[in-house]
Amino acid sequence: MKEVSSLMGVRQDVRVVDATLRDGGLVNDFRFDDDFVKALYETNLKAGVDVMEVGYKASSALFDPAKFGKWKFCRDDEILSVIGENNTDMKLAVMADVGRCDYKTDILPKKDSPIDVIRVATYVHTIPAALDMIEDAKAKGYEVTCNIMAISSAQESDLRVALDMLSASPVDVIYIVDSYGSLYPEQIDRIAAVYSEYAKKYNKKLGMHAHNNQQLAFANTIEAVGDGVSWLDATYAGMGRGAGNCPMENLLGFLKNPKYNMFPAICFIEEHMQKLREQGVVWGYDLQYLVTGLLNQHPRTAIEFTKNGRRDHAEFYREIMALE
Amino acid sequence: MKEVSSLMGVRQDVRVVDATLRDGGLVNDFRFDDDFVKALYETNLKAGVDVMEVGYKASSALFDPAKFGKWKFCRDDEILSVIGENNTDMKLAVMADVGRCDYKTDILPKKDSPIDVIRVATYVHTIPAALDMIEDAKAKGYEVTCNIMAISSAQESDLRVALDMLSASPVDVIYIVDSYGSLYPEQIDRIAAVYSEYAKKYNKKLGMHAHNNQQLAFANTIEAVGDGVSWLDATYAGMGRGAGNCPMENLLGFLKNPKYNMFPAICFIEEHMQKLREQGVVWGYDLQYLVTGLLNQHPRTAIEFTKNGRRDHAEFYREIMALE
Repeated sequence: MKEVSSLMGVRQDVRVVDATLRDGGLVNDFRFDDDFVKALYETNLKAGVDVMEVGYKASSALFDPAKFGKWKFCRDDEILSVIGENNTDMKLAVMADVGRCDYKTDILPKKDSPIDVIRVATYVHTIPAALDMIEDAKAKGYEVTCNIMAISSAQESDLRVALDMLSASPVDVIYIVDSYGSLYPEQIDRIAAVYSEYAKKYNKKLGMHAHNNQQLAFANTIEAVGDGVSWLDATYAGMGRGAGNCPMENLLGFLKNPKYNMFPAICFIEEHMQKLREQGVVWGYDLQYLVTGLLNQHPRTAIEFTKNGRRDHAEFYREIMALE
Repeated sequence: MKEVSSLMGVRQDVRVVDATLRDGGLVNDFRFDDDFVKALYETNLKAGVDVMEVGYKASSALFDPAKFGKWKFCRDDEILSVIGENNTDMKLAVMADVGRCDYKTDILPKKDSPIDVIRVATYVHTIPAALDMIEDAKAKGYEVTCNIMAISSAQESDLRVALDMLSASPVDVIYIVDSYGSLYPEQIDRIAAVYSEYAKKYNKKLGMHAHNNQQLAFANTIEAVGDGVSWLDATYAGMGRGAGNCPMENLLGFLKNPKYNMFPAICFIEEHMQKLREQGVVWGYDLQYLVTGLLNQHPRTAIEFTKNGRRDHAEFYREIMALE
């Protein structure tokens, strides 16, 4: 049974991270117009959000900039031209994927950049590359987090080696990532206990990034809060790849610190997120994501099913089971 | 931390209860056509559902039968004409509300009825009337459950008196009911601990009936499983009043007993639940339900907002806060 006090009181270590542009960008190829981004930034300030992730630092050699919106690349001059200098307490973050980022050249020294936090994303088997990115970002002056993706299909013994290596690095926050939306709250509890062993020993913070395949993104996030996890990813209206993420409005409603305010989130969703849906941008829980989540699979088949406007869920289930 | 074994193994005491016709009926005034009900019955048998709740035993003096479908009244002859004798292991249940049911006349002796289980629904302050209904149903030969509604706005000391009175009655199952969808999993944990004190002492079983206002109906239901609760209400596609209930398909996917089978649920949803939505029947999570859930309010204002086709969530929030 969780301690009442840790959930009904204020947890000063909690940091709410808005990942709308980054994980939501995976839905619309990062084609957010400038007015949307400006309104999102203002909303985050009013809502008390601690960190706003503005997108990826993706390699423009690997990805054609003509095929994506600017938030896939997050050039410092473009962040400055839309968001400005950001002289606020809220931090700006970008994600840099192992193998998909020219970090040595594209990530400038922090003193020359509007970015505050570099979020390195890695698989268990690419930790050495992640360590190089973490050290590069740290040396340049950034706060650094690391997302270990797809842990639901990794071995715990491998994960422990990865955690040990990461914990010995200068990384500040290590994230639990439920990439496939396959984990249940009681699994988050046990996983957080494993991560905590390393976090406590090396004085690191923990983060949670959930997906909503089983309608558990919010539940898993508040479970993580109860397990001592403090950096919490959320997106407005849960916008994110496939079934989406933990909805920001739910998280803001749950957290008891009076610095967090749900009303700006409601206003933003009414004005901006409904418009995206009307434009045909599709995300959120649906049966096809439940199936891939339950089977602990990458959601790509379910995303394809959704894109094709299919509603024959029984046939989808047959196809997936035949591939297993 | 929950025991792994109790969640990954088979819990023989678990009973899955399909409440689609009853809680879903609140959305469409119980106007399900006979083909829908027959297909639902067949689906439940294939899916391994243990109990099918077919609707309410509502007073036809209090409610005009011309204004509702037959599943608000569940006359025994009508159950027989649509579903038949039900010579299966699956039980049929009806709900009888305190003050809205002529139970002495409308509930026949079990030997003359296709119904197996009477589910009495009460508030904390109407327990004596519920006890009379429980005793009546028990004397007629039924298995009897009791839902104590709206406990999130009751005092724990009153709830304990109610539990003590109920536990001393011949009721078989006592339900935790999150009527307003306002409870978090860690609260379910604590509430289940209180209910368990009485259940263990008097050898009663416990049940869980969740609502999805905060996208926690499924999470709260599986939390309850981990807390020793065994009767689990769910509805196909989560159909139920306002934000709806725990989705049957999620619950069947979660439970490890091989008797439960998710595929028939997927087929039924594709063929029948989508049709209801296309006919304009509206239910399920939306921002207005999050707001009433967070404020621990009856969802009637949010249902009205939905019925009127409103999307001005910011104005809704202002209205609700002004009424608080």
